[in-house]
Amino acid sequence: MRQTGSESGLEARRRIRAGHHPGHTAGLAPGHVQANLAILPRDLAADFQRFCHRNPKPCPLLAASEPGDPRLPALGEDLDIRTDLPRYRLWRDGELVEEMADIRALWRDDLVAFALGCSFSFEAALLADGIALRHIAEGRDVPMYRTSLMTTPAGPLHGPMVVSMRPLRPADAIRAVQITSRFPSVHGAPVHIGLPETIGIADLGRPDYGDPVEVRADELPVFWACGVTPQAVVAASRPAFCITHAPGHMLVTDLSNARLAIF
Amino acid sequence: MRQTGSESGLEARRRIRAGHHPGHTAGLAPGHVQANLAILPRDLAADFQRFCHRNPKPCPLLAASEPGDPRLPALGEDLDIRTDLPRYRLWRDGELVEEMADIRALWRDDLVAFALGCSFSFEAALLADGIALRHIAEGRDVPMYRTSLMTTPAGPLHGPMVVSMRPLRPADAIRAVQITSRFPSVHGAPVHIGLPETIGIADLGRPDYGDPVEVRADELPVFWACGVTPQAVVAASRPAFCITHAPGHMLVTDLSNARLAIF
Repeated sequence: MRQTGSESGLEARRRIRAGHHPGHTAGLAPGHVQANLAILPRDLAADFQRFCHRNPKPCPLLAASEPGDPRLPALGEDLDIRTDLPRYRLWRDGELVEEMADIRALWRDDLVAFALGCSFSFEAALLADGIALRHIAEGRDVPMYRTSLMTTPAGPLHGPMVVSMRPLRPADAIRAVQITSRFPSVHGAPVHIGLPETIGIADLGRPDYGDPVEVRADELPVFWACGVTPQAVVAASRPAFCITHAPGHMLVTDLSNARLAIF
Repeated sequence: MRQTGSESGLEARRRIRAGHHPGHTAGLAPGHVQANLAILPRDLAADFQRFCHRNPKPCPLLAASEPGDPRLPALGEDLDIRTDLPRYRLWRDGELVEEMADIRALWRDDLVAFALGCSFSFEAALLADGIALRHIAEGRDVPMYRTSLMTTPAGPLHGPMVVSMRPLRPADAIRAVQITSRFPSVHGAPVHIGLPETIGIADLGRPDYGDPVEVRADELPVFWACGVTPQAVVAASRPAFCITHAPGHMLVTDLSNARLAIF
């Protein structure tokens, strides 16, 4: 991977658009907000906007496009939502049917794109504070789990909340609550600590998405609401048509992580 | 107990001074800050002031008197530290030798009084947020434990950190971290959550001070640094002379709890 220490969001998007970065976006354009993506036809878009408003922890809405407009000017200059992510997923009737690197052939005048905050931003804040994150140290995807915590439905949209898990020593867990509370637009404070069975997680070693990560005897599993929740909602609600990012293949924006802090 | 809903800090202190309230101060002058007390001779007072600065979580210093002056004007009008607490403890060479309701006969020109923040203030903030606290609901003292977490020494003063424990469901524990982080002058955020054995607590059912309180299967024990720490430090450091409040028999001040919040 080339050195990306000084890359801007725009430079990263142009490199992705040109097909020069087909992989995960972790570590791209350091310091810049990355986003989860959901694209829905206009008839479901109003439901989804309401769904995000009712479920701000898993679905913190950063920006929504005008119908048919592939730009998100609030998030970046010369941003084209159809080409600027390295990998997309196409869902039909709630089933994943295809992954692709470009969705121009699928674009329609009635589609609305939603960009949701992503844990990369708060992970950067945790790392900057000196809190080690094992999945990053080990080069794994964060483990994610469907829970028994239900989202608040909106129209036909419903489903379980998905959470990501990071093992932390208790003092670090307390510090992590403080740090991530400052970032409500990227999932904010954890939704759970320490007792996974009470939120419907039977086995931490078998995540529903991502990779397993060890929780040591002197650590607690700490759980944040996760931007993969819309994909679980799509699977549960079965909309006829939906496009999302592929896990880890995010929209890189021009926003600075630091500017998301509310105090 | 008479109705104290509208009582001021000054009214409560005058009632205590007159001997009309010999018991615990919990619930007195609601909304007002109560404080832990430590009184030391001038030769140890500088060490103690430094000790508090180095250990702000167990020993958040609200005010220190001038040597020999029994007033603490920063904390209240017409406040006399020798008479305004319902019960004091006299310690000699680290041993508790006597409890009394008035220390005028012991007062000396070289004594310095220290008032330290107390958990009553953050408990009021937790209750106001709708978080139930079992020890209060059951009319018990909060359970407190000496830990293997060591304070940072200052001169001859050293000893273990004492913590108080409140059982909370995980979501409430996260909210409690947020709420108490706003109140650094009354112990601030918890120092530990969930794994008591890692901080030297072998049996939650046998607190070193206060009463045991049940921790249910869907709860985590949450631990805050405790203002009883100076008494453990006195026991460990064995100063020739020291006066403290008796547990639960605090200094009632004129300060409002709400004004302690830093944001």
